[in-house]
Amino acid sequence: MRLFPSLNLFSEVFQQSTDQTMRVFMKQRWISILRITAAIAAGVWFPLRVVFFDALVPADFAVEGVVFTIAMVSLFRNTSDTSRSEMWLSVLESVPLFLLFYPALGSSAELLAIPKILLLRHLFRIRDLLDSMDSLHPVLARILPLSAIVPIVMHTVACGWIFLGSGTAGTDPEPWVEYVRALYWTVATLATVGYGDISATTPLQMLYASITMVGGVAFFGYVLSNVAAMLARMDAAKEQHSALLDRVETFMRFNRVPPEMRGQIRDYFRYVWESRRGYDDSFVLSSLPQKLRSDLHLYLNSGLIGKVPIFRDASPEMLHDVLAELKTLIVVPEEIIFHSGEPAESMYFIHRGSVGVYSAQGEQLAILDEGSFFGETALITANVRTATLRAHTYCDLYVLHRSALETVISRYPEFRTHIEKTAQDRLRMRVA
Amino acid sequence: MRLFPSLNLFSEVFQQSTDQTMRVFMKQRWISILRITAAIAAGVWFPLRVVFFDALVPADFAVEGVVFTIAMVSLFRNTSDTSRSEMWLSVLESVPLFLLFYPALGSSAELLAIPKILLLRHLFRIRDLLDSMDSLHPVLARILPLSAIVPIVMHTVACGWIFLGSGTAGTDPEPWVEYVRALYWTVATLATVGYGDISATTPLQMLYASITMVGGVAFFGYVLSNVAAMLARMDAAKEQHSALLDRVETFMRFNRVPPEMRGQIRDYFRYVWESRRGYDDSFVLSSLPQKLRSDLHLYLNSGLIGKVPIFRDASPEMLHDVLAELKTLIVVPEEIIFHSGEPAESMYFIHRGSVGVYSAQGEQLAILDEGSFFGETALITANVRTATLRAHTYCDLYVLHRSALETVISRYPEFRTHIEKTAQDRLRMRVA
Amino acid sequence: MRLFPSLNLFSEVFQQSTDQTMRVFMKQRWISILRITAAIAAGVWFPLRVVFFDALVPADFAVEGVVFTIAMVSLFRNTSDTSRSEMWLSVLESVPLFLLFYPALGSSAELLAIPKILLLRHLFRIRDLLDSMDSLHPVLARILPLSAIVPIVMHTVACGWIFLGSGTAGTDPEPWVEYVRALYWTVATLATVGYGDISATTPLQMLYASITMVGGVAFFGYVLSNVAAMLARMDAAKEQHSALLDRVETFMRFNRVPPEMRGQIRDYFRYVWESRRGYDDSFVLSSLPQKLRSDLHLYLNSGLIGKVPIFRDASPEMLHDVLAELKTLIVVPEEIIFHSGEPAESMYFIHRGSVGVYSAQGEQLAILDEGSFFGETALITANVRTATLRAHTYCDLYVLHRSALETVISRYPEFRTHIEKTAQDRLRMRVA
Amino acid sequence: MRLFPSLNLFSEVFQQSTDQTMRVFMKQRWISILRITAAIAAGVWFPLRVVFFDALVPADFAVEGVVFTIAMVSLFRNTSDTSRSEMWLSVLESVPLFLLFYPALGSSAELLAIPKILLLRHLFRIRDLLDSMDSLHPVLARILPLSAIVPIVMHTVACGWIFLGSGTAGTDPEPWVEYVRALYWTVATLATVGYGDISATTPLQMLYASITMVGGVAFFGYVLSNVAAMLARMDAAKEQHSALLDRVETFMRFNRVPPEMRGQIRDYFRYVWESRRGYDDSFVLSSLPQKLRSDLHLYLNSGLIGKVPIFRDASPEMLHDVLAELKTLIVVPEEIIFHSGEPAESMYFIHRGSVGVYSAQGEQLAILDEGSFFGETALITANVRTATLRAHTYCDLYVLHRSALETVISRYPEFRTHIEKTAQDRLRMRVA
Repeated sequence: MRLFPSLNLFSEVFQQSTDQTMRVFMKQRWISILRITAAIAAGVWFPLRVVFFDALVPADFAVEGVVFTIAMVSLFRNTSDTSRSEMWLSVLESVPLFLLFYPALGSSAELLAIPKILLLRHLFRIRDLLDSMDSLHPVLARILPLSAIVPIVMHTVACGWIFLGSGTAGTDPEPWVEYVRALYWTVATLATVGYGDISATTPLQMLYASITMVGGVAFFGYVLSNVAAMLARMDAAKEQHSALLDRVETFMRFNRVPPEMRGQIRDYFRYVWESRRGYDDSFVLSSLPQKLRSDLHLYLNSGLIGKVPIFRDASPEMLHDVLAELKTLIVVPEEIIFHSGEPAESMYFIHRGSVGVYSAQGEQLAILDEGSFFGETALITANVRTATLRAHTYCDLYVLHRSALETVISRYPEFRTHIEKTAQDRLRMRVA
Repeated sequence: MRLFPSLNLFSEVFQQSTDQTMRVFMKQRWISILRITAAIAAGVWFPLRVVFFDALVPADFAVEGVVFTIAMVSLFRNTSDTSRSEMWLSVLESVPLFLLFYPALGSSAELLAIPKILLLRHLFRIRDLLDSMDSLHPVLARILPLSAIVPIVMHTVACGWIFLGSGTAGTDPEPWVEYVRALYWTVATLATVGYGDISATTPLQMLYASITMVGGVAFFGYVLSNVAAMLARMDAAKEQHSALLDRVETFMRFNRVPPEMRGQIRDYFRYVWESRRGYDDSFVLSSLPQKLRSDLHLYLNSGLIGKVPIFRDASPEMLHDVLAELKTLIVVPEEIIFHSGEPAESMYFIHRGSVGVYSAQGEQLAILDEGSFFGETALITANVRTATLRAHTYCDLYVLHRSALETVISRYPEFRTHIEKTAQDRLRMRVA
Repeated sequence: MRLFPSLNLFSEVFQQSTDQTMRVFMKQRWISILRITAAIAAGVWFPLRVVFFDALVPADFAVEGVVFTIAMVSLFRNTSDTSRSEMWLSVLESVPLFLLFYPALGSSAELLAIPKILLLRHLFRIRDLLDSMDSLHPVLARILPLSAIVPIVMHTVACGWIFLGSGTAGTDPEPWVEYVRALYWTVATLATVGYGDISATTPLQMLYASITMVGGVAFFGYVLSNVAAMLARMDAAKEQHSALLDRVETFMRFNRVPPEMRGQIRDYFRYVWESRRGYDDSFVLSSLPQKLRSDLHLYLNSGLIGKVPIFRDASPEMLHDVLAELKTLIVVPEEIIFHSGEPAESMYFIHRGSVGVYSAQGEQLAILDEGSFFGETALITANVRTATLRAHTYCDLYVLHRSALETVISRYPEFRTHIEKTAQDRLRMRVA
Repeated sequence: MRLFPSLNLFSEVFQQSTDQTMRVFMKQRWISILRITAAIAAGVWFPLRVVFFDALVPADFAVEGVVFTIAMVSLFRNTSDTSRSEMWLSVLESVPLFLLFYPALGSSAELLAIPKILLLRHLFRIRDLLDSMDSLHPVLARILPLSAIVPIVMHTVACGWIFLGSGTAGTDPEPWVEYVRALYWTVATLATVGYGDISATTPLQMLYASITMVGGVAFFGYVLSNVAAMLARMDAAKEQHSALLDRVETFMRFNRVPPEMRGQIRDYFRYVWESRRGYDDSFVLSSLPQKLRSDLHLYLNSGLIGKVPIFRDASPEMLHDVLAELKTLIVVPEEIIFHSGEPAESMYFIHRGSVGVYSAQGEQLAILDEGSFFGETALITANVRTATLRAHTYCDLYVLHRSALETVISRYPEFRTHIEKTAQDRLRMRVA
């Protein structure tokens, strides 16, 4: 499974489109990217500035400017579907109040930056953004947002810790050392490691640590359990196959199935897994509307269609109709598909594997390979099988039941002609 | 999803009712609120008084008084359904034994307050109380009680820790600092952080810490896992849709479905999600009794009923009967709904989208929009379709099968008249 | 739900039985109890003796004696189903090698007590023992064994820690203080709290702590997750009901169902929960063999049988047969059960609630209560309903379909007579 | 359940095979084992050498040599299915760059060993390797790889910690003491215990500890949850049975089922569990292709076949056909299987238990044991049962329905002869 998003993620972001709906969609995506950028910039910068800076620094102008510009661009490019309350929120979170009032209020203007917290809600757009990128595995689209949100939460908690005095770690001439220590304390607390080399001293710090533990531990636990669940789902097919195998093994142990039979049963499940990866076609197909289902069916069976002569030059309509009626069947080596003399109920197409044709006396008449079909003779000209068919290898067969065959033949007489001709050729051969 | 309970929670609590059953129910609710209040008051006060106070303080009188009054009121207003044992429990937990015996026994009368622990069982009423409030999201109704129980547990553990001497933290001239330190130790222990800056010194403290760890960690873990499970269920529909998408994606990857077809399949699932939010109507409908199901059906389809002329002036009984027989069907753009010349099995109503009518020669005869119906011609006057119908957009259709149509027509002859008239008009038009 | 095992647990253990199989079973149970006792005694004593005692003490004789005696008793009372390897194991774990070789080897004879570890496997018998006690809630039977195994694991880890020198805690003149400290360290490590006030100093202690952390944390985590899962299952029915309600609520929100209809739908689910506790009878019934199912059915419906006159004096065989054919149906107030003039398909018995009988003109003819039946008229004497039936309250009805009725009547002609008589009386009344 | 892999694991690894496919498979397995060995050697050695050695030591030559040799052998023995990129990776990770450039660069040549990290990907082959070993329980095959990967991760983290200065632990004259301390710190961090006796001092160490906590805790949590899930699945059948019992118990409590009936119901479930271990045959059987299913069926019922006289000398084809039609049925003591005079629908074979034959007047005519069949009389010669059959014990029966019997008889006339003979004998006996 290809886990890491390749470069076409970037090409997707920058792709052009002439389609009107698509262009609106692309504009929306760009606005999302801009707002997420603004949210990250504000989320990173403001806690830092509160803790480490007294005077105005260039970064203040940069961040406030970026946030404001992005908000204005988003509002004016996106007016159609913006509610009135959403517009006011946008204004509230983006107006650079801190800058405007700093000359008057000094450092205490930092309180006016509190509405910037609202910007963080744009981080939830990350999931929608990634969901809309087709080249990304859908599970990743749900894990990546966490890798943006978790660091910002940690950063904020760490800055709060510095603000309250850093506990036993105290202040440090080097701000970055102070920051690393606070981050270390934060991670040790959220991950419930709690070394205790740095700990709270004042009652306020103790309350802060307590809240961080309760809230943060819950948050961390939630994130971890989610990620685990998602990773588990990435290989759901393999997991389901393993569960089936487990049940089969326990069953065989309890019933003391002899080793030889166990081997055959295991081989069978190995074959099924290798040839189909355990993906149950029918589940996916049944959740699609008819046209897509039939298109997909046609695509999936293009191999079979290329191999079976009567399908090769059939019209698409007929193919649709025939394929819709086919059922798959796996037979194991030496399995007898039908006995000579049995009543005939269906005909078969070989998708993979080879099958031997035997007379009632057990004499081998022919070997049929991929792309052959058999069993049509009895279905059309007579009522009982005229030969015994036995699988030589594992075979993937497609079965067409009598009633389905009759429906198809009634609609497409050319199908009947082709099959009857083959049937007569074979009958003559066997009689000869 | 609206997570936070709005003000109508309060209006619900205070609402009046003239209905007899409702009034009993409202009285019960009030008694619940009072008993929860008593439980919280006792749970917060008694540990504090044991640890910090020697003499009687006014709060003793207040809390004991409130608890006793509430218990008496509950008993006398609620005599009908109170069992004998429940009554004795109520008396035992509410009689102010501590106050009565304080003059004689001094501080050791605190032991007589132990039965107050029984009051805590009333905290479990919180869930029932919230469950009965209709304006609260049902998941919240199960999370909120924890936010009452968890702090009381923490408070009690912290007071116990102070009682045993607070370990290495020792006593402090300021009781509130002592309390904050004990709470900090409690949270660090329950959340398994265990900084170790405050730790046990005497064997008794060590035993207390050990019990807190085993019991408390289990409790904390249980709470966290419950909350995680509930949050997961809040967006069950989205989750289920994602799981389906994951399977479809894996299937498409394994079978190397070409990009164009992938796009169509993804578009389809996006359409289904947007138009229905993935809520499977049939599941909810099937769990209702017939009358509610049919009322709900009528409501959900009021859009369709308003659009389709033959439904607009139908009697409610006929609508009930027709709607019960309709099946929904989604078709994708360019999907052919039926071919000219095919045998007819059902008629269709357009709920959303538009459909083109084509002659057998491929000439476009008409375009049908929301509220139109088609396919009735062949069903009533002939046996094979007289035109080819192809979807122009995604369409939400309702299908009425031949047998269902016949049942309806036999009961409501006016339905037949209307449909036959339309059918003849159309036939004439096509012939012309 | 009654969580705590009552005194009849003890009576169960000591109960006598005259039945042969039962007596074997009781003997087995006694042997289990004895072996578990031996395992606990050895598991508690040997770690302690290694750590705290040098010379022989009376407890050595007591424990070794008890273990040996119990093993011998078990072997000789239980010879039938003991395998040869099991017998040798029993001897190996019970022979008092330590006592025998102490005179020769001194303290180093403790090494000969290592096979006593094998005794711990008997602890797994606790679950089987509890599973066989019918008066214990089955979930408890799976939680209680843990409360025996977890303390023994902790005890052993703590003694090992003392043996290695107790880390920074060091030795203490008082052995019990030393033990409490070691236990405190063990719990803090297993619960991943890790205060760090006591920690490893020598490399050996560090290795011991590391192994305890890896193994112990896994064990602790496993135990906790198991307990949580089991507690969750204790109220599975309520949980399932809540999940259904959540889906219904989300559905109603998405479709903006009007408040009045929401109220009705919520009332319905409340009624279903109150009257049936959400236990799906059919699931349990379908997993039983026919005789038990029919006995249980008879018991569950004894209320109905007592109320309905035609059932009261029916033979048990007839009751079996009729009850097996009844289906349950809940109708809401004002729901019309059938209209006058409709074709008749089934007859109804009222289990709970009341139903009004109305003429085609809407005039109320009668009110039917619990134990009445209706709808038989049309089924027997005519083909269409002769009255309209409307529910006045929530009703629990039992439905008997026409084909089932005919089967019953063909077998029990007296049933026909009774029903026909009632039907004619009613018809006459309506005509009158 | 046998958890520990026995010695035949080793015999499996070394087994010879004459089959061509098998020999390729065996070669692949050997290459896997070699590559895993190389990965472990490199993963253990390189971190150690970076931390503890400056000069070249013999182990350098040994490890580099082994890695290079194995890579070359794998490449040349395995050329067929190796992609070009895989080949370059192999070369990159195995060329002993460190050794080649040590003379020129000295210790800083260690940087050239970084591509050796790529070797670790071969550790994922462990699961495939174990999966292919049939004598290993499939759950173990998924747990064992973790016991290889987890120690290597811990080892690497510990070496990194030493490299950065070991925090407050500092360096030690004895390298192995230093290593044990680092490992102790690593385990305490990953298991979130965090004693804090050893902690980070420099900012770099703090960053390293933070990353270890976030990454490592997630990894550890993932591993633990996986192991717990797998252990849970090992006893899935028992678990499922317990869940069913829980539901039944809750049902019986809610409905106040009387104790005697409870006892019977519990006995029944105990019988089902003991006799079948709760493994639902039909599930496993239905997932197999027809030939394996019928072979397995034949094997599972070999007991029945040996007991029932008419099966003992039947042809394999007939057995196949009859067994496919049999349904299992459990009856409880005193259950009446059919009444004299009832219409006959099926015949029965006794697999276990005993059944009494009674005349219509209640007189006991015969007792039938394992291997008997009954109910054939009415099926063949008449239309109603000529006797009443009542179970004396719990019975495992196989039921052959009338229509299935007719199909079998039409194919195998000898079956009819045998059954008719028995039926006439019995009739004569009863008449007599």
